Amino acid sequence: MILTVTLNTALDITHRVRSLTPHASHRVLAVTERPGGKGLNVARVLAALGHEVTVTGFTGGATGRVVQELLTATPEVLDALVPVAGPTRRTIAVVDERTGDTTQLNEPGPFVEPAEWSAFQEAYEHLLRSASAVALCGSLPPGVPVGAYAGLVRTARAAGVPVLLDTGGEPLRRGVAARPDIIKPNADELAELTGSHEPLRATQDARRRGARAVVASLGAGGLLAATPEGRWRAAPPARLHGNPTGAGDSAVAGLLSGLVGQLPWPDRLTEAVALSAATVLAPVAGEFEREAYEELRARVAVTAEATAA
Amino acid sequence: MILTVTLNTALDITHRVRSLTPHASHRVLAVTERPGGKGLNVARVLAALGHEVTVTGFTGGATGRVVQELLTATPEVLDALVPVAGPTRRTIAVVDERTGDTTQLNEPGPFVEPAEWSAFQEAYEHLLRSASAVALCGSLPPGVPVGAYAGLVRTARAAGVPVLLDTGGEPLRRGVAARPDIIKPNADELAELTGSHEPLRATQDARRRGARAVVASLGAGGLLAATPEGRWRAAPPARLHGNPTGAGDSAVAGLLSGLVGQLPWPDRLTEAVALSAATVLAPVAGEFEREAYEELRARVAVTAEATAA
Repeated sequence: MILTVTLNTALDITHRVRSLTPHASHRVLAVTERPGGKGLNVARVLAALGHEVTVTGFTGGATGRVVQELLTATPEVLDALVPVAGPTRRTIAVVDERTGDTTQLNEPGPFVEPAEWSAFQEAYEHLLRSASAVALCGSLPPGVPVGAYAGLVRTARAAGVPVLLDTGGEPLRRGVAARPDIIKPNADELAELTGSHEPLRATQDARRRGARAVVASLGAGGLLAATPEGRWRAAPPARLHGNPTGAGDSAVAGLLSGLVGQLPWPDRLTEAVALSAATVLAPVAGEFEREAYEELRARVAVTAEATAA
Repeated sequence: MILTVTLNTALDITHRVRSLTPHASHRVLAVTERPGGKGLNVARVLAALGHEVTVTGFTGGATGRVVQELLTATPEVLDALVPVAGPTRRTIAVVDERTGDTTQLNEPGPFVEPAEWSAFQEAYEHLLRSASAVALCGSLPPGVPVGAYAGLVRTARAAGVPVLLDTGGEPLRRGVAARPDIIKPNADELAELTGSHEPLRATQDARRRGARAVVASLGAGGLLAATPEGRWRAAPPARLHGNPTGAGDSAVAGLLSGLVGQLPWPDRLTEAVALSAATVLAPVAGEFEREAYEELRARVAVTAEATAA
């Protein structure tokens, strides 16, 4: 199975309102709830592609119970979340029906106690034994040490499980030094890690810092990959209009799917871009449009980049 | 005991953010949760005044369980909520730390099935047997008939229990016709009921429509009461600065407390205004400042109004 780790899981709530006006009172026209946090999104996409997936991370309180209840709707995703005393956070996306704009409110995660962090590490080590790949996704909740991902990367490498890291800031900086197989920063995360706003130079620099392969997601610019086998750009056939929520998580799912399927890098990037684009086009945020995915796979352009000096 | 009915209970969530900007992403700096819905607020204030209180209405889903858990923190308030399949709604108050402004998001309530509505009515009738007064508070969740409050007023009257109705719109219009002992509309609700924006005329008109006593809450203008014993205005000694959330519910608690204590009307209004003002002054929305309440009781000005022709 593929293992995804979401230390800061969330209950993602969407509120549709007629028009969001600060300082006013709003009737919410429609409410939707789904399990949230990058690793859970990645797992849903992997399951839809037919992979066996296990999710771990933390769950707590009433919101954590709702997340776990909602997860049972996707029986292909095995729930191996570890209990914590604090409540799983909520994220609230307020969608303005007039403009289509989304305003996001992200609660902080629960405080994770040292004993809870230890319990997680034990569960993680155990789960790695049956994992063909592992993805470490998203931010760290309070209480989890900033070097957490570095430790989890090392544990995966010691277990011989390929590991993808998708996070930002200091947890990414420390995690990269532990030599993950793949990192998938967005343009901002990459610039923060390397100090360079020039993606070609920055991906190369991130490899020197320890990542075996770097796949930078550049929004509408598609993906830029620097790998031991070469460097490529991969982009959808046309500019997409839609909701980019979850597009990065779908790209991670594509990369993992290609990794466990031992596809050559250009094919992995094709998968990642097609899934990502099909997510932007889907009517529900974070879901992907299967027909668009099938159709886009044939039309993603992957071009080799000359290796920098 | 005093019974309060909240058909559309809520989990009230407060999110503090640095500054609310539509279309942006916000880190929530602090989260607080409390049981919400007007009748639950009224009950908390009554309990703080030393009354035995029972709350009823509906509770459902994960949010309903949280509301009930939070209610156990006030053991003086007895939980007699009736289960429904749909989830109790959330309300989210987003407080902008820069301006102090609050932006409110109110979810719709759960759909109440006919069998659930019948189960509630049975529980209500049973609870009335040991009630010295009952307050019917707030909006109706979907599925509950618009004449619901009219029916609940008649049941209370048949049981010989004095009944206060605090709602608006069509549920108020129908409820008034069933002859409640007290209604407590705000200026907008009163104008909508009577078609008159002139409070003196409107309170008199509302009595003609069936309310035995009308206590209109006019915001900074205090209370205006039209009762069988006379008409009064009651106002705090000075303009108050603070958060008016829950001030109306505290006024209802004051009116109920005065009713069961058989206080003369001017004293009931003094209680209502002092509690309401002490709620505006409290640092936590919906709580009341006990010292301010004790101090204000001596300083509320109650003046008789000449009876209109």
